[in-house]
Amino acid sequence: MGIVGRLAGLIGLGLMASCASTDAPASDLPVRSLGEILEQSPASDWRAVDQNNLLYMQLPTGRVIIELAADYTPLHTANIQALARAHYWDGAAIVRSQENYVVQWGRDEGDARPMGQGQATLAPEFDQPRAGVNITRLTDPDSYAREVGFANGFPVASNGSRTWMAHCYGMVGAGRGDTADSGSGAELYVVIGHAPRHLDRNIATVGRVLQGMELLSTMPRGTGALGFYETPAERTTIRSVRLGSELPASERVNLETLRTDSESFRAVIDSRRFRRESWFLDPVGHINLCNVPLPVRVRS
Amino acid sequence: MGIVGRLAGLIGLGLMASCASTDAPASDLPVRSLGEILEQSPASDWRAVDQNNLLYMQLPTGRVIIELAADYTPLHTANIQALARAHYWDGAAIVRSQENYVVQWGRDEGDARPMGQGQATLAPEFDQPRAGVNITRLTDPDSYAREVGFANGFPVASNGSRTWMAHCYGMVGAGRGDTADSGSGAELYVVIGHAPRHLDRNIATVGRVLQGMELLSTMPRGTGALGFYETPAERTTIRSVRLGSELPASERVNLETLRTDSESFRAVIDSRRFRRESWFLDPVGHINLCNVPLPVRVRS
Repeated sequence: MGIVGRLAGLIGLGLMASCASTDAPASDLPVRSLGEILEQSPASDWRAVDQNNLLYMQLPTGRVIIELAADYTPLHTANIQALARAHYWDGAAIVRSQENYVVQWGRDEGDARPMGQGQATLAPEFDQPRAGVNITRLTDPDSYAREVGFANGFPVASNGSRTWMAHCYGMVGAGRGDTADSGSGAELYVVIGHAPRHLDRNIATVGRVLQGMELLSTMPRGTGALGFYETPAERTTIRSVRLGSELPASERVNLETLRTDSESFRAVIDSRRFRRESWFLDPVGHINLCNVPLPVRVRS
Repeated sequence: MGIVGRLAGLIGLGLMASCASTDAPASDLPVRSLGEILEQSPASDWRAVDQNNLLYMQLPTGRVIIELAADYTPLHTANIQALARAHYWDGAAIVRSQENYVVQWGRDEGDARPMGQGQATLAPEFDQPRAGVNITRLTDPDSYAREVGFANGFPVASNGSRTWMAHCYGMVGAGRGDTADSGSGAELYVVIGHAPRHLDRNIATVGRVLQGMELLSTMPRGTGALGFYETPAERTTIRSVRLGSELPASERVNLETLRTDSESFRAVIDSRRFRRESWFLDPVGHINLCNVPLPVRVRS
């Protein structure tokens, strides 16, 4: 295999190894790799994603699929669904790619399209009451919030009284102007770097990329201020954005996400918190919110 | 400017705004933008980077410049310097690009080159005694370590008795096999996603990218296991890797980094911890180790 092959596993995600480290911290859970946990998970630990909450964005290089977080941002979700039904983004463009930050897409003002049933501005949906939200908590401290964890498949944070979605890698948000109510979801961005958690509670985080993230994260960086492309030629044109519910069944992808309130997901967290693969000399014993994988699969 | 233009500043890094938010937390420091802090910084707050610690990696798409962390990993630094002097990486390749993780380069075993004065394996340099290391500390909690901050320009962590460099975005490490001493620096990787801090103390982190990071982060992702490219055609060939000290003066870039023990750097941390730009509705008041910018400039 060569040096490259021999070293392949070393800084891998350890999907293939499951040896117990002799100095791994005690845990009641059996030692299983991430792959084993997923293979052995019962069907009831998975959630079929509602096709009405899926955006299929077709780029020249392939397809990106985004899940909208209807529970946390219902107004934005409804508006983005309306814009998709109006084919608002067909012919829009990737306008910005800023290193270690975000890739953003939308339309220029002079190129506006009818928004159909969509609204131009929405009330802010930056957080919501903590009460009544079921959060699978992480126990390690977080730099930004008193409590972090997962709610219905999304990374979230809270201060005890309010909760909000966290700007982890792959999360999608709705751009806004200088006032709180100026966002509509017409202009969207995705996080492509170390989690910019300072955006939490400052802007509506509306969903996350389930498939095709690599098409966005490898966009050539823009050379203008804030990573905007300086010429139209540098932009990537978006062919179309459709809701899964509007596509013919043959074009839908039946995605499932691991339920974040399931025992299998608790095992996933544990397997990434304590690294029992033999390669790890220090089994770690800690994990950050944005380092927990959120498994997605295609329903067979 | 259009919608895109109008919204440009909103999720930007706020380099251009410096308005005080009325509800910003109290601070004794004057309200300055990051740009203002850097403009007003005295020359003594900057450190000229030793050209002997700079790797100039020439790719078909441009040049990447990496600073080696001679203080934290002296053995690896010396070995990587020896390998560069032996032109070890000329004609080597980018062999791996794994989404939200690392880009890695090196040579296949069958394509080995003389290592010059370099060694094939080194003693581990995963951490060192905390005593005697000057760390500019951050006050917010960290998910992985009791103490985090900056030492001589690099993000670091500690448990009180030992200290190590942290796997933040743009940090460079030396691949190793299954034993602690099998790394040499011949195979290197760079972090291109959310900080994989579970690698801390498990592998030698040897430096960070100062220029050209976008050339690495946008490498098309490999479709093999762990993001390895499956065919030679997908790889990017490295034309050369040279130490700055070996280059003619006309080809050197005189880089300076803001001293992380300077007052200007403390002001940078404060300006990113409390977001006083008018766009921010919540001034945040927290920061994660890997969200603190480490300013670099070309000496004029």
